[in-house]
Amino acid sequence: MAKAKLTLSSKNYSSWSLRGWLLCKMAGIPFDEVPVSVDDPGQRAELLLLSPSFLVPALTDDGAKIWGAWSIAEYLHETFPKAGLLPEDRVARAHCRSISAEMHSGFQNLRSALPMNLKAHHPGFKVWAGAQPDIDRILTIWGECLATYGGPYLFGKAPTVADAMYAPVCMRFYTYDVPIDATAAAYCRTIMDWAPLKQWIASAKAEPEEIEELDVEF
Amino acid sequence: MAKAKLTLSSKNYSSWSLRGWLLCKMAGIPFDEVPVSVDDPGQRAELLLLSPSFLVPALTDDGAKIWGAWSIAEYLHETFPKAGLLPEDRVARAHCRSISAEMHSGFQNLRSALPMNLKAHHPGFKVWAGAQPDIDRILTIWGECLATYGGPYLFGKAPTVADAMYAPVCMRFYTYDVPIDATAAAYCRTIMDWAPLKQWIASAKAEPEEIEELDVEF
Repeated sequence: MAKAKLTLSSKNYSSWSLRGWLLCKMAGIPFDEVPVSVDDPGQRAELLLLSPSFLVPALTDDGAKIWGAWSIAEYLHETFPKAGLLPEDRVARAHCRSISAEMHSGFQNLRSALPMNLKAHHPGFKVWAGAQPDIDRILTIWGECLATYGGPYLFGKAPTVADAMYAPVCMRFYTYDVPIDATAAAYCRTIMDWAPLKQWIASAKAEPEEIEELDVEF
Repeated sequence: MAKAKLTLSSKNYSSWSLRGWLLCKMAGIPFDEVPVSVDDPGQRAELLLLSPSFLVPALTDDGAKIWGAWSIAEYLHETFPKAGLLPEDRVARAHCRSISAEMHSGFQNLRSALPMNLKAHHPGFKVWAGAQPDIDRILTIWGECLATYGGPYLFGKAPTVADAMYAPVCMRFYTYDVPIDATAAAYCRTIMDWAPLKQWIASAKAEPEEIEELDVEF
């Protein structure tokens, strides 16, 4: 069986690539990374926040092709049910799917106001008021999970799909110095200390700069 | 065990409610419908296309609460694996998840330019050019599925999650008289003849008119 391939775009800017990569790491699947050039029109549009790309990340595994972080999550959960991508308890699993899908389809204002940029740090950044309801909703989601399942990850002692989905939000909160409550701040520290995330950040910081427009804008 | 409950908003306007309802019908689960008032601020915002609602549709079943059409789909597939919500073949299943998630997270321009309105029909409607790439992408997705799996549904002889996800698009294409190819038109006819969809449309047409703003706008 050929080794799996995961198509990714920028490690610094592409939050969806990060999610797909974290999921594959969590599943323990060996895979080769296939970078998509930032000159690719679809990728460029996504990185410049002009339109979402649905086709990255994409996983090719044993004859199947799956695109989109959430589809990859369900595929990996089905293929590696022991990897713990979703919580064991069925009620918690339903909760985990609900908040993961909420991230997958929502929070447009947060995404456009605070694009992921792992190389940057902007103390005192003024957050657009339109993004505040998204931030509030995310803090509510995190607070409920951490209170219900006891942390330090959203569904308890080990990371699940939900942590992969929200990890880029932690990075955004750090980059743009977003004021958050103590519970959320502790959760963000847990995510920043998560081994695969640290590995991704190191790769992102080593990535050559190619998206000049984003540098100008932020 | 208490009967499941499905929270829904407007049958005429809420495409996400339609998707969640179709999925429950496909799973064969008995459920009570719980309507959310269109005066509810979150629902009103969604119906007026101001912001998405993540919390409707919501399914309460045997102690679990799941919200979002795609999360409901995976919950039902897990709970009723014999119901055929996803294709039996694993490669087709990966494909089905990918295009269903693509609908779940994308096509913003299509959604805002052509909101679902089952009571309306606008022959010769001028479609905003910004929605055309979304329409083209959907026709490509449908064409690939129908060619690969032989129709009449996207993954062959029986409807799957993907048909529930794209059913509101068929209704939009009809309402706004969107020019589509013969293959797509045949697929739309299949969906319009699908028994649960006909049942939903009949309920939508009997629904009292409450969203005055939408009537003015379209």
